[in-house]
This record gives sequence, C-alpha cells and structure tokens, in this order.
Amino acid sequence: MKVKVGISNRHVHLSKEDFDSLFKNEEFYSIKDLSQKGEFMSNLKVTIKTPKGMIEGVRVVGPLRSKTQVEISKTDAYKLGVEAPIRLSGNLDGAADIMLSSPNGELMAKSSCIVAKRHLHVNTSDLDKFGIKDNQVLKAIIPGDRGGSLDNIIVRSKDTFTLELHLDTDEANAFNLKNGDEVEIIGE
Amino acid sequence: MKVKVGISNRHVHLSKEDFDSLFKNEEFYSIKDLSQKGEFMSNLKVTIKTPKGMIEGVRVVGPLRSKTQVEISKTDAYKLGVEAPIRLSGNLDGAADIMLSSPNGELMAKSSCIVAKRHLHVNTSDLDKFGIKDNQVLKAIIPGDRGGSLDNIIVRSKDTFTLELHLDTDEANAFNLKNGDEVEIIGE
Repeated sequence: MKVKVGISNRHVHLSKEDFDSLFKNEEFYSIKDLSQKGEFMSNLKVTIKTPKGMIEGVRVVGPLRSKTQVEISKTDAYKLGVEAPIRLSGNLDGAADIMLSSPNGELMAKSSCIVAKRHLHVNTSDLDKFGIKDNQVLKAIIPGDRGGSLDNIIVRSKDTFTLELHLDTDEANAFNLKNGDEVEIIGE
Repeated sequence: MKVKVGISNRHVHLSKEDFDSLFKNEEFYSIKDLSQKGEFMSNLKVTIKTPKGMIEGVRVVGPLRSKTQVEISKTDAYKLGVEAPIRLSGNLDGAADIMLSSPNGELMAKSSCIVAKRHLHVNTSDLDKFGIKDNQVLKAIIPGDRGGSLDNIIVRSKDTFTLELHLDTDEANAFNLKNGDEVEIIGE
C-alpha cells in the first residue's frame, strides 16, 4: 500500500490546568486544521527550556488533552540536553520533565517530554481493506537518493483517523522526505 | 561486514584565503584528532548566517583545503532557509552560498554549502578483504527500536582512511544511533 507522509515538527499538547497556567484568559483557536480530524495547529506558542538551552516558538496543538505532552526530535533532545524517550503519543512512561514558558507564566511539565515513535494512522473502516490490524508492526520503503526503509511502524486506528505515516523531522530529513510525499508500506 | 558509525555534526572546512579573511593571525590547532587520519577538530568556530537565521559555534575542521566547504544537516538547512544540495564531500556542484562570520570578519562563501551524502570510508588495503570497490553502492542495516536501512551508501577509499560509516545528525537521530555504534553493511 502507498501512503502519504505527515511530518511532525516539535509541538506541545496542553492539559486544561497547564493551559490555564500559561495562557489564562487568552483566546485559543485553530489557525490550520491538521490532517487528523479534530486536531488543529493553534494560534499559541510556548518556549521549551532546560538548564542547557531553549527552543522558542513551539506550537501548541489543539484541542486540550488530559495530560500535557511535549513532542520533540532527537536533534532537539541533544540541543536541550534532555533524556526524552521514544514513545508512542499518549504513552508517557519515563517521559522527561521540561520547563514550558509563555509571556504569562512558566511551569515545569513533569513526565511530559517524548520523542514520538513513528506510526501509521489508519481509519478503522480501512483496516480490512488493507488487511492490517490495530497495533500491527509494519515497514516503510522510501525511494530516492536518500532512500532506505523504516522498521517498527505501529498501526494506530480510530474512526476519526486519516491514512498517513507520521514521522518526525529527523526521520523525514534523513530520507529527504517532504509533507505529502508517498512511500510504500509492507509487512515486516 | 560490521562497521562503526561516525556521526558528522555541522562543520566547516576552510580554504587558506577564507581562513586568512576570518582568522588572520589566529592560532589554528587540533583539539581532537578525528577518526580519519590527518583530519582534526580545530580550536576555532564560525557562525553561519543567512537572511533567515544563524547558527553559532560551527566547528572548523582542519587541515585547510583547496576550497571552503560548509556541511550542514537538512534540519539546519530548513532552519537557515538555504537550498543546500545532498553531495559527497568534495563535490560542490550546485552548492549553496552562505555567510561565514568570526569575531574578525565575515565573508560570503559562494557555492560552499552542502548536506553531506552518506558514505563508507574504507582503507584502500581493505577493499579486497571486504570484496568491495571504490565508489560501489552499498546498504546499511540498522538494528533497534528505530531500526531500518539506508540505501545508496557510497564507498570512498584512500590509503589514509579508517573503516567507518559517515552519517549526519539527521540520519543518526532518525535511527537513534550514537558515535561508535555498529551496523551491518550489505550489497544493494
């Protein structure tokens, strides 16, 4: 099967409590809908900070979630000197602590910071069509001068999902991939 | 065959003319020998700049070369907004212009900036042992949770080279590789 690539730049999901602490009384709205239904790039940005460094202008992705989750690349993790584990979104086991700041405030987001594990979003109604299952492990074949393959791609299915391979900027740049490029997915 | 990975962070090789323009009368010495014989991490750093951004603290790698060459990652290229092509070191066909600055001066390094193409350094005396040829195209198999493979690895041989797979930081981070990690090399 051929799928489009969606590249995740570093971003932050906020809990209601952390949102209120950083952005109390601020408007929070979508400036661009993301490919996964209901998810949006918001108007707000934070700075992420460690004792070693900081990265400004990190986008807050909406809607609010039950837990704050900060997704960065390994390149960012080295720059910030933070031991962020590679985890599927939503799994914050062993996630790193990281400081978030806005013009209104600052907070330590405990156990929030991960490097996102690559995964394939599949709408539940498409699983049978492709003969795959939720949580199945697949492989992507990437063409081109910087081609190769990526193992351990986990299928994540929901009835709101759109078919898309989610990679982070390190993975995309290593293979010279751009948003919307097509790659082939095969069984492992 | 199993080989060790050497990860190249962004760095600059300078011509004598550009060195003199940036560092006239400065001492230039090795603070650490690199794995390839004769190459060293020097005591000097430059800032690389474009109208969109800058990256400070970019290491000058010695010795001086006939042409200035600035090697960055795709992640850096996006940050700087520079169209740096993927090229083997030494091939500056279509290389981008980029500004270099030091406390002593600043210059536009014309046709100098590339993203390094992955390659395998092999000592000439080892080619027969491994049954490979200079310029042959190989593939690396990378184990682990972020495993996969990298195609189009070009063999580069010289009698001063030490066996090592050279990747940039995007490639290393995409596969969660560290300096000195071992990977397997096979024919394509």
